[in-house]
Amino acid sequence: LTLACSKLCNYSGDRHIKMASIIEFIHTATLLHDDVVDNSKKRRGKTTANFVWDNKSSILVGDYLLSRAFEMLINDGSLKCLDIVSKASVKISEGEVKQLMAANDFKTSETDYLDIIIHKTAELFSAACEVSAEISGMNEESKKSLADFGKYTGIAFQIIDDTLDYFSISGKSGKETGNDLKEGRMSLPLIICFQRCSIKEKRLMEVIIRKKTLDNNDFIKILNLMKKYNVEQDCINKAKHFSIMAKDSLGRFPDSDSKEKIFNLVDFLSERKV
Amino acid sequence: LTLACSKLCNYSGDRHIKMASIIEFIHTATLLHDDVVDNSKKRRGKTTANFVWDNKSSILVGDYLLSRAFEMLINDGSLKCLDIVSKASVKISEGEVKQLMAANDFKTSETDYLDIIIHKTAELFSAACEVSAEISGMNEESKKSLADFGKYTGIAFQIIDDTLDYFSISGKSGKETGNDLKEGRMSLPLIICFQRCSIKEKRLMEVIIRKKTLDNNDFIKILNLMKKYNVEQDCINKAKHFSIMAKDSLGRFPDSDSKEKIFNLVDFLSERKV
Repeated sequence: LTLACSKLCNYSGDRHIKMASIIEFIHTATLLHDDVVDNSKKRRGKTTANFVWDNKSSILVGDYLLSRAFEMLINDGSLKCLDIVSKASVKISEGEVKQLMAANDFKTSETDYLDIIIHKTAELFSAACEVSAEISGMNEESKKSLADFGKYTGIAFQIIDDTLDYFSISGKSGKETGNDLKEGRMSLPLIICFQRCSIKEKRLMEVIIRKKTLDNNDFIKILNLMKKYNVEQDCINKAKHFSIMAKDSLGRFPDSDSKEKIFNLVDFLSERKV
Repeated sequence: LTLACSKLCNYSGDRHIKMASIIEFIHTATLLHDDVVDNSKKRRGKTTANFVWDNKSSILVGDYLLSRAFEMLINDGSLKCLDIVSKASVKISEGEVKQLMAANDFKTSETDYLDIIIHKTAELFSAACEVSAEISGMNEESKKSLADFGKYTGIAFQIIDDTLDYFSISGKSGKETGNDLKEGRMSLPLIICFQRCSIKEKRLMEVIIRKKTLDNNDFIKILNLMKKYNVEQDCINKAKHFSIMAKDSLGRFPDSDSKEKIFNLVDFLSERKV
C-alpha cells in the first residue's frame, strides 16, 4: 500500500521503500504476537511460527521487529512519519486489548466491532497510506484523503477476512475456517447472526461459544444459523460499502494508471472469495 | 421515536410523553434556527416561520423552546436524562457550526460529512431513543443498543433527506429541491459527485458552487453529473447500510409487535422516495 500510494503521489525518491518495510515490520510483529494470543496453527497457508518454534520466540522476534521498525523510522528523521506510525502502533495495541476483552461476550455490538477493527487493522492501513503522502510532501487535504483511503480499505479488508473465517473453502484462503469461533472472537458474522437470532437460537449460540472445545458439529450449527439470516451476503455488502468509501476518498487525485492499480488492489482485498 | 422505543422497553408510566415532547421541542427549536441560517422558504410543504414572520421571531421562539425543554427536563428530575439530552444538544450546535464551516468547500470529505450529520441529526435521534431506555430502567447494554439504534436511524434518515434535496419530485416530500446546492451545503450527493468527477467536471462544479445566485440550468448541470456517476443509487445504498445497522442494534430485544412497528418506522424514514 505504501508503495502504491507513493506512486499515486508521484513520489520520486527512495524513502518509500524504507517506509513500506517499516510498516511491514510492524505488521509482521503484530501477526507474530496475534498468532500466539489466538493460538493459531496456520497463517497464509503455512504453519505459524509459534507452532514451528514456540510462543516465546514468536513474542521476542515480534518485539525485535517492532523496535527495529522504530529505529529505522528515527534514522529516517521525519518527526511527522514517526508521529503517524507511533500513533497507529499504540492504537493497534489498544485494539488487541479491546478484542481480548470482547471475547466470548455477546454484548459486543457492531459498533464495538467497528471500533476494534479500526484500531486493530485500519489504523495501520491508514498510516501506511498517510506516510507516503507525507514523504511526497503532499498538502494536508491529500494526506487526509490518503489516511481516509487506508482506513476504509482496512475496514473492508478486515470484514472480508472475518467473513472468510466462516465461509472460506478451507485451504484456498490460507487460513483454517472456524478459528474465530474456537477463540470466541466476536467478529462481524457472529455479531450479526446473534442479533438476528430468535431467543432460542441465541441460547444455543451462547452454549456453543462457552464450550471449552468445539467439535465440527458446533461449527456447522452456527454456519446454518448464519445461512438462515443471510449473514455472508450482508457482510460482503458491508465490506463493499467501505471499499466504495475508500475509492471515493481518492477523488482529489486525477485518473491515472497508478490510481487504477490502487482501485484494483482495493477490489482484490475487499472482494476476495473462498 | 421516544414513544416507539418506550413501547419496545415495555414502559408503563407516563414520563415518555414528556420526554417525547422535550425531544420534539429541541428538534423544533433547531429547525426554526436552521431555516433562518439556510434562508429556507419551505419546510414540510409549508412556508417557513421566518418567511411568514421574520428571522428575529424564529430565533427567539427557537430559544424559548430550547429553554422550555430544559426546564421540563429539570422538573422531571432525572439527572441521567438531563445528561443524555444536554450532551445531544451541545453536539447539535457543534454539528451546525461544522456544517457552516464546510459550506462551499469541496475539501469536505465523506468522513467529514458523516461527522457533521452524526452531530447535527443522529445525536438527537440517539438521545430520543436512549431516554426511553433510561426512564424504563433498562440495563446499560439495552441503553447502548437503543442509543446505537437511534444514531444509525438518524444517519440513514439524514442521508435520504440530503438525497431528496436533489432527487425529490418537488412538492411530494414537502421540501424544495436544490436548496442545499443554493446554500453551498456539502451534503453526501454533492461530495460523492465531486469525488467521482473528472478534473474538467470538478472545475465546472466549483464555478457553480461559488456563484452568488444559481439558475435552474446550474442545478440541471449538477443533476446530470450526478446521474452520470450513479450518485442517487449509491446514496440510497449507503442509507440502507445504516438502516440495517440500526435494526441489528435491536437484536437483544425479542421479536414483538412494537419491534415490528419500529422496523417499519426505520424503513419509512430510510426508504422515503420522491
